[in-house]
Amino acid sequence: MDIKGSLECNQLIKRYIATRAATTEICAPLEIEDLCIQPCADVSPPKWHLGHTTWFFEELILRQFVAGYQRFDEHFSLIFNSYYKSAGLHWTQKDRGNLSRPTVAQIAQYRQQIDELIVSLLNAGISEEIATIIEIGIHHEQQHQELLYMDIKYILHCNPSSPRYSKTPLMSAQAVTGSWHTYTQQLVEIGHCGEGYAFDNESPPHKTYLTDFSISDTLITNGEYLAFIESAGYQTPKYWLSMGWDWLNENGITSPLYWRNLDGKWFEYTLHGLTPLDLSAPVVHVSYFEANAFANWRQCRLPTEQELEHYLRSSDNQALISAQGLPPASYHQPQLHPINAGDTSGQVWCWSQSHYSAYPGYKPFEGKLEEYNGKFMCNQFVLRGGCIATPPHHYRHSYRNFYQPHQQWMFSGIRLAKDIV
Amino acid sequence: MDIKGSLECNQLIKRYIATRAATTEICAPLEIEDLCIQPCADVSPPKWHLGHTTWFFEELILRQFVAGYQRFDEHFSLIFNSYYKSAGLHWTQKDRGNLSRPTVAQIAQYRQQIDELIVSLLNAGISEEIATIIEIGIHHEQQHQELLYMDIKYILHCNPSSPRYSKTPLMSAQAVTGSWHTYTQQLVEIGHCGEGYAFDNESPPHKTYLTDFSISDTLITNGEYLAFIESAGYQTPKYWLSMGWDWLNENGITSPLYWRNLDGKWFEYTLHGLTPLDLSAPVVHVSYFEANAFANWRQCRLPTEQELEHYLRSSDNQALISAQGLPPASYHQPQLHPINAGDTSGQVWCWSQSHYSAYPGYKPFEGKLEEYNGKFMCNQFVLRGGCIATPPHHYRHSYRNFYQPHQQWMFSGIRLAKDIV
Amino acid sequence: MDIKGSLECNQLIKRYIATRAATTEICAPLEIEDLCIQPCADVSPPKWHLGHTTWFFEELILRQFVAGYQRFDEHFSLIFNSYYKSAGLHWTQKDRGNLSRPTVAQIAQYRQQIDELIVSLLNAGISEEIATIIEIGIHHEQQHQELLYMDIKYILHCNPSSPRYSKTPLMSAQAVTGSWHTYTQQLVEIGHCGEGYAFDNESPPHKTYLTDFSISDTLITNGEYLAFIESAGYQTPKYWLSMGWDWLNENGITSPLYWRNLDGKWFEYTLHGLTPLDLSAPVVHVSYFEANAFANWRQCRLPTEQELEHYLRSSDNQALISAQGLPPASYHQPQLHPINAGDTSGQVWCWSQSHYSAYPGYKPFEGKLEEYNGKFMCNQFVLRGGCIATPPHHYRHSYRNFYQPHQQWMFSGIRLAKDIV
Amino acid sequence: MDIKGSLECNQLIKRYIATRAATTEICAPLEIEDLCIQPCADVSPPKWHLGHTTWFFEELILRQFVAGYQRFDEHFSLIFNSYYKSAGLHWTQKDRGNLSRPTVAQIAQYRQQIDELIVSLLNAGISEEIATIIEIGIHHEQQHQELLYMDIKYILHCNPSSPRYSKTPLMSAQAVTGSWHTYTQQLVEIGHCGEGYAFDNESPPHKTYLTDFSISDTLITNGEYLAFIESAGYQTPKYWLSMGWDWLNENGITSPLYWRNLDGKWFEYTLHGLTPLDLSAPVVHVSYFEANAFANWRQCRLPTEQELEHYLRSSDNQALISAQGLPPASYHQPQLHPINAGDTSGQVWCWSQSHYSAYPGYKPFEGKLEEYNGKFMCNQFVLRGGCIATPPHHYRHSYRNFYQPHQQWMFSGIRLAKDIV
Repeated sequence: MDIKGSLECNQLIKRYIATRAATTEICAPLEIEDLCIQPCADVSPPKWHLGHTTWFFEELILRQFVAGYQRFDEHFSLIFNSYYKSAGLHWTQKDRGNLSRPTVAQIAQYRQQIDELIVSLLNAGISEEIATIIEIGIHHEQQHQELLYMDIKYILHCNPSSPRYSKTPLMSAQAVTGSWHTYTQQLVEIGHCGEGYAFDNESPPHKTYLTDFSISDTLITNGEYLAFIESAGYQTPKYWLSMGWDWLNENGITSPLYWRNLDGKWFEYTLHGLTPLDLSAPVVHVSYFEANAFANWRQCRLPTEQELEHYLRSSDNQALISAQGLPPASYHQPQLHPINAGDTSGQVWCWSQSHYSAYPGYKPFEGKLEEYNGKFMCNQFVLRGGCIATPPHHYRHSYRNFYQPHQQWMFSGIRLAKDIV
Repeated sequence: MDIKGSLECNQLIKRYIATRAATTEICAPLEIEDLCIQPCADVSPPKWHLGHTTWFFEELILRQFVAGYQRFDEHFSLIFNSYYKSAGLHWTQKDRGNLSRPTVAQIAQYRQQIDELIVSLLNAGISEEIATIIEIGIHHEQQHQELLYMDIKYILHCNPSSPRYSKTPLMSAQAVTGSWHTYTQQLVEIGHCGEGYAFDNESPPHKTYLTDFSISDTLITNGEYLAFIESAGYQTPKYWLSMGWDWLNENGITSPLYWRNLDGKWFEYTLHGLTPLDLSAPVVHVSYFEANAFANWRQCRLPTEQELEHYLRSSDNQALISAQGLPPASYHQPQLHPINAGDTSGQVWCWSQSHYSAYPGYKPFEGKLEEYNGKFMCNQFVLRGGCIATPPHHYRHSYRNFYQPHQQWMFSGIRLAKDIV
Repeated sequence: MDIKGSLECNQLIKRYIATRAATTEICAPLEIEDLCIQPCADVSPPKWHLGHTTWFFEELILRQFVAGYQRFDEHFSLIFNSYYKSAGLHWTQKDRGNLSRPTVAQIAQYRQQIDELIVSLLNAGISEEIATIIEIGIHHEQQHQELLYMDIKYILHCNPSSPRYSKTPLMSAQAVTGSWHTYTQQLVEIGHCGEGYAFDNESPPHKTYLTDFSISDTLITNGEYLAFIESAGYQTPKYWLSMGWDWLNENGITSPLYWRNLDGKWFEYTLHGLTPLDLSAPVVHVSYFEANAFANWRQCRLPTEQELEHYLRSSDNQALISAQGLPPASYHQPQLHPINAGDTSGQVWCWSQSHYSAYPGYKPFEGKLEEYNGKFMCNQFVLRGGCIATPPHHYRHSYRNFYQPHQQWMFSGIRLAKDIV
Repeated sequence: MDIKGSLECNQLIKRYIATRAATTEICAPLEIEDLCIQPCADVSPPKWHLGHTTWFFEELILRQFVAGYQRFDEHFSLIFNSYYKSAGLHWTQKDRGNLSRPTVAQIAQYRQQIDELIVSLLNAGISEEIATIIEIGIHHEQQHQELLYMDIKYILHCNPSSPRYSKTPLMSAQAVTGSWHTYTQQLVEIGHCGEGYAFDNESPPHKTYLTDFSISDTLITNGEYLAFIESAGYQTPKYWLSMGWDWLNENGITSPLYWRNLDGKWFEYTLHGLTPLDLSAPVVHVSYFEANAFANWRQCRLPTEQELEHYLRSSDNQALISAQGLPPASYHQPQLHPINAGDTSGQVWCWSQSHYSAYPGYKPFEGKLEEYNGKFMCNQFVLRGGCIATPPHHYRHSYRNFYQPHQQWMFSGIRLAKDIV
């Protein structure tokens, strides 16, 4: 990697440029106003993501490896550091929407300048160490691309006019009728063991003992979820975790995040605007509390993350998964982004019943990136399987997504499992 | 007034147009980003003021007096109604910053269209009733012009880069040395009794008995206030109201809103940016709690609103007041706006010790405007005297401004009074 | 007063002993459990009142005037100081219920020992200074006697079993039909000017100009208030102050504090237990927000505190007042406490529309008692006229009671006034 | 079990009586005042535990199996139901301290009457079903005995006088020097598989694959924990979970719950009163956040619950464990309660790094007890090993205790583990 113009180096430059461009493209259909506000603590202003992903490269590459580097702006480290205590003070997350400056135009300039410097650096030939951080930075930026879709959807839905982001619908009905796949007890290998990129939390690969279980090959649909609502699911405490029941009542929750009942008819806010609820599309934007309650109502349970990983890996499921729009085995090959391309896969992240914890023998990234994953291993649940907003090249079966049990704004859905009696 | 082209009618049109233009001008130096955000519940996004002041004319004139009028946008009544329950549902104040739409450009279009319709209507000749509401609407918009300055200052100061709004400084040192004016006990007339416009809360004019008192002819300066801070004023409970002491400690307040101590040196954020504290300029952005504590520390007290009104009215004070930049007797004559013109008067609203209450015989405006003033007569204190951000033509000596005792973001200062022993 | 055995001294001793005994008597019908808890921040555990009123004499008399005095217990100053910053640290009010110690028995011992020391001191002959503080201490303790009734009622009502405090009912129907008393505009004298005791906030006596007004000679009854509820008063924003409307909705308020609707029938929790609502008894335990909304609904207003004082003073009202159970002219003569004696006067404090503020020329008590009243002159409203729980000897027409506008747990009711058009 | 006078039946009666008596004994050294208050939401008034454990038998035995049974008091089901939605409405946990009634004496009467009825029922011969519920009720009551010690300690420590509960100290120094026990990777059996009683969450027994690990045979001492504090552990973000760091700063946490620094010297509040910190005793009352941060500082980790269970089970550790005062293999034999007997074992529950989740194949108890455990499987961490306040007969190695990561008031300590590289 230390030889200028190597194939690996050229590919890295290409991927860097493509990833950076994709982020900007996601924001292209929006107004400046949409990019600035923070309607709730979890949702960052899109312009902040544009700045933060740039700061990542400035802080971890330019500031570390370019002698005498002067920051683009002295205030940006404070503003665009997300949570890295080792990188100095950072602005409180919930107050990101209180900053009118830098403007969107200034952030665009920031992106351009940092990109020029990074590409120059890469073109000059780079060390293994820098290549590793660039690689992480690309995957980091892809995570923020998915966050951008989540945050944009939330921001737009706050407007009484229900504006559209996308010209075409994104989700589609499921093609297949569900059946149950059964696995007998066995010792399996879990975690990242291949050659490609993975985050620290996917390692080390290790053995886990699975007991007998069945798992459904289809996602729960809006129609199935509506049946739960209509059978008083949200009024029946026995289906709910104790914290879930309190959350429900304190926040007046009666449905998934973007559902609206207008004069007795159900609608859903989507990136394509407000549409009548599609009963055959997968349910999305449910919290862990809701997914768990639904599973209890159906006298099933949510799968563990190990069961999900094992199921997703099993080669005999690939054809089926592909039919549903789940990521094919060749997922690492370039493909058009579902949202841009009108892909109607209907794919959502599946809640597992597993709290997010360290794998045995877990070692965090080193240096400033030590804070990347490990410090969030508390009171979160793992989701598996990717979704329509997950960028191509980003997903793999060992991927561990994680959110708090009350959160709804990610593209989260339900796949059921059950014990074999 | 029902004859097209009358002098009154023409003047009303002229004043309507000028007022509406002035509002837009206030926002001209800002970026779109500055117009959209709401960094705290009290501070509205500037674009909301632009929409709300327009909605006022649409709702109270066009919707009432133009047969078959169709709203510019069906969602705007929900969004731009501030608090008029009689005008239907309104968006919660603290959530105004959650709306990315309508955009600034759409609101500009809204302003233009409503202005064209109103001017057409006025040109066609108008009734006394409509003229009265237009008049109120003009004064209402002027109130929002001052709010705009307050909110813009707050929004800009949140940015670590301390951006400037104004090209020149606005406040200036006081020209005169303070002395005390003494009044002996007497029955005086308080409230609005002249010909010009006044809000309902300034009426009816009525008799009040004033006991002997003295009042200072100068405002408290930053230097005097700093002496209070440096003598441990913020750490000494006996100067403070009980609620004030709690407020101080719960919010970690140690100085007026925009003061900052950087490495032991005091600075103040102003509309002209961050500047070293000018010790001879009037202190501004103090809460009632702070004004009251300062007065106690000086073994004085704040004046009542009646004492302030009587003092401001007394003709022998006019020369003096004028020298300080206080509104001259001819205040109703057109004059350039201090902020535009670089006027360096240093004028601030003076806290009175009077809670905001109804005058004896008070009658609210009728109809939808009944909610304008009366329903806020609880837990607020009156301020008197106008400030640099008060639009020309808007102020009069009977004017009653009012805020909650913890609020600091208005241009509030201190004038002391004392009893005569 | 410096001569042992003087008549004044003997009377002071007698009144001291009687007042101290009355406090203990109020708690006699209760269980230890009732004396210990604090169901909301405003309500103190009754045992705390027993300790605090004792601490007052220990801190302000024994510690100041007895050389070498050692405190009964080193921790009591921290625990039983209410809010006197000058007397050192004090326990946070809302956490008084977190203290299981000292026990009720220990506090009884504390009371006894301090009483013995105080009586010894008084018997030995005392200075004017000490006599003044003892006098204040007696009035202070009487204020806590009324607070005890308020707090006991609140504590007992929290229990699902609705236990009784009193063996007999306390409120009774009003004897007289209401009529309006009219006063023409005049300059009147307000405040304490007689010989008896008064708090600092009742002074100095001063002139106030009253405009024409009428005031009702009866209190609003439960029946009248029920009519307000039944005409959707709590669902109609136009009657309510803006803060009141928010309070209503955030707290789900739909009636006075102790009313309960059981299967469509109205009941009221009283110190005599849960009883069917007596429609002819005065309404009690309404907040300022409710009193003000009721007055608006009736197209009247609440009187100012000056109007109430003037009305109560007017000699021609005495017969009438007496018939209603209002304090007679001879109120300062000893009489049995209504609650002990089964007095059925039905008397409640009347909300005025006046915020609690300093009188012109107001001077707080000196020394440690400087904090007694002045620091609460913010965001409270004045109530006038006394109530069934006000101890005999304690009330006078210049008496200013004050509470925050949302508070309901004091014996507060409504007397209407109106302007003369 | 359906034959009167069987050995099993007689033993059950004996254990029922002994358990019920032990609960009352725990409260014997307290004042009524100590039994009534709730200084924070987690801590219930001790009298509530006395009532709730009695309600358990009334609701689940007498109401289900005694024809025509009339409740002792109609209000008790509302008041003493903890969280069983299927048993009707229940009083909010945080408001338990708002109830002054029933009194302690009334609850004692309630206990006595229910006990008489239950013993009569048992003496008459009982079904398997009833015996099972009685058995659960006994274990349930033992859980509340430990909660009583936790709550009593918290209640007493709130008092500035730091009252003592116990006449003798309870914790003692550790006898052994720590060494590491190493286990190689293997498939092990986890969960309850023996004959004795177990809660539903300990089943079913199942295989788990453990990777290589070492675990310490001693608990972390106060001295070791103090070294963490003194090396700025609480000021160094990299040791802390993200939520832990926020918790620390929002609550001003700087040490374990009962530590106090007086004039630079460390003390600890214990059930024996305030004592100088014993550096060789095990650290106790640390949150998961603190335990995890400490482990990071020591470059170790907390063990998983499976590792802890495996370690505790390993017979070769028994001698060692016994020396430390950990529960011996013969733990199910009667023994004196440490607190009563002055046992100085120094034993604390050890935090595991495992979130509390269902075992594969988990089935909740049936009927009303379905709500016992499963609905809390969210955002809690498992603790293993028992503590000085755990009643004899109650503990077993498969026992899963669980608390939220910020909670400190249980007897929680630290045992370190590490990976083998």
